[in-house]
Amino acid sequence: MQKEGVKELVIHEVGLRDGLQIEARTVPTDQKVSWAEGMIAAGVDIIQLGSFVHPEKVPQMADTDRLFAHFLGTGRKREGVMFSGLVLNEKGLERGFHCGVQMFCMGVSASETHSRKNTGMTTAEAADRIIAMASEVLRAGRRLQVCVQSAFGCGYEGAVPEDRVVGLAERFLAAGIRNLSLADTAGHADPEQVERLFAKLHALGNGFDCACHMHNTYGMGLANCCAAIRAGVRYFESSVAGLGGCPFTKVAGGNICTEDLVHYLQRTGRRRDIDLGRLIETARSLSAFFGREMPGMVYKSGPIPMQSSNS
Amino acid sequence: MQKEGVKELVIHEVGLRDGLQIEARTVPTDQKVSWAEGMIAAGVDIIQLGSFVHPEKVPQMADTDRLFAHFLGTGRKREGVMFSGLVLNEKGLERGFHCGVQMFCMGVSASETHSRKNTGMTTAEAADRIIAMASEVLRAGRRLQVCVQSAFGCGYEGAVPEDRVVGLAERFLAAGIRNLSLADTAGHADPEQVERLFAKLHALGNGFDCACHMHNTYGMGLANCCAAIRAGVRYFESSVAGLGGCPFTKVAGGNICTEDLVHYLQRTGRRRDIDLGRLIETARSLSAFFGREMPGMVYKSGPIPMQSSNS
Repeated sequence: MQKEGVKELVIHEVGLRDGLQIEARTVPTDQKVSWAEGMIAAGVDIIQLGSFVHPEKVPQMADTDRLFAHFLGTGRKREGVMFSGLVLNEKGLERGFHCGVQMFCMGVSASETHSRKNTGMTTAEAADRIIAMASEVLRAGRRLQVCVQSAFGCGYEGAVPEDRVVGLAERFLAAGIRNLSLADTAGHADPEQVERLFAKLHALGNGFDCACHMHNTYGMGLANCCAAIRAGVRYFESSVAGLGGCPFTKVAGGNICTEDLVHYLQRTGRRRDIDLGRLIETARSLSAFFGREMPGMVYKSGPIPMQSSNS
Repeated sequence: MQKEGVKELVIHEVGLRDGLQIEARTVPTDQKVSWAEGMIAAGVDIIQLGSFVHPEKVPQMADTDRLFAHFLGTGRKREGVMFSGLVLNEKGLERGFHCGVQMFCMGVSASETHSRKNTGMTTAEAADRIIAMASEVLRAGRRLQVCVQSAFGCGYEGAVPEDRVVGLAERFLAAGIRNLSLADTAGHADPEQVERLFAKLHALGNGFDCACHMHNTYGMGLANCCAAIRAGVRYFESSVAGLGGCPFTKVAGGNICTEDLVHYLQRTGRRRDIDLGRLIETARSLSAFFGREMPGMVYKSGPIPMQSSNS
């Protein structure tokens, strides 16, 4: 029985990875620990501590192993939360095993251009490699989520044929992967597309979970999450305060904001167990650290007062 | 035949009224004209030029009559666009008739506290008064939209019973009003509530249109518009750049952003006739005028490049 399997919708916080990796100001490990503790106390289900990438390539991720050692060192576990890590290649996978990563995340881009720019490989080659890595994770009995990146459109190529996305999902399912994520890397998704594409995934069979990773680049992020819920998606990746995007351009393409998503889920009765106040505190701490207003709305407005709940 | 009746979804720009009325910096009439011209050139269907309120109460609205004179003076009309004005009382109605307002907007709050604070009247008393004013507009053969304010929750009272909203709608329909708007004044609405409440309105009969006026205070604004579309709502009120909210607190409770909404409608094939580039120019001009970043996303990111359209 999966620990979080009892929850209908699972919140997977990825701000410490997808949010921070584009920030120029290096965040000290202690600060990351403090933010993670805030989100653990709030009751977030899964926290992605970082990615196993070469520290020279993404200095912000240089302390990923240390973060795992902090939270999971000497075989400790934390009740009620799981720690995930993103792996990009075999070396990262090895580091992840060594760190005791509880849930491995990895992905392949459905866009040939994006795939080549990110990995130097075609989509088909990248899929071969990721399936081989995923199989190692499955053999080791670890939790696994495999993602189709640029599933709803690509910043380089534009539209991405849905058949390419479905084709990758089929390969992943045939390899025994049971948690498939679709990432809207460029923020191009619209709600109708989200419902349509996840319906195609669900039509491939039973016995697997779907996840989504949405960005709010064009303001459609939360609407896309609502569509994903209607389509039966169970795992939602989001970033506290809506961290992400690029602070040096005016393109505010951050991840879907965790506390805004949780506020919506609380309001509609789907997740009342997460402490929104603790998430808001964490978002405010992030905003103070970076010295700028973040994209999230609820950390600014505060939640709708309790007397106005529809319950 | 209503001019905009041929369009499935109608965009009603309210930034010059609901957006500007809370801004401390007075906007010169010429500047308002320039922004309105940008939105007319873009192809927005209805533009609300202002409200007929006492100039000492809301100085930002002191030039409403002058704006109407500019666009509609000496019986002129502008092809392809309609100008609406908000009226709060009989004096405002008289001014509106004098100005040649093409579409009158007025409303009653479903929240007793909100109604008393805004008008000094109970909801029932305010409804009597508004129905009397609406009847004058109908007798004069002018276009009319009557709104239930605080329809999805109230900043003072919290939850607003849906029966109160439906009861007001029934009274309006009985009075011959054929365009009913529900306003999420406090931004409390969630998509499920939006679908449910508009379904109750549509269950009251046929032969009338529904409108919605959403705020993005808690990040649910666009998701609520998507829900309203599913519920058969045809008229959408929005503000260019997401103008609104309060720039002096951290509560960013602006209206739904016009160009973000139009971008979504374009992306999903619902309105391809509006010039998004012109809307973005107008939003950037607003941002420059007020010297701050506005809540809208698409004016910052630019639209998704054409090659990535799903068409």
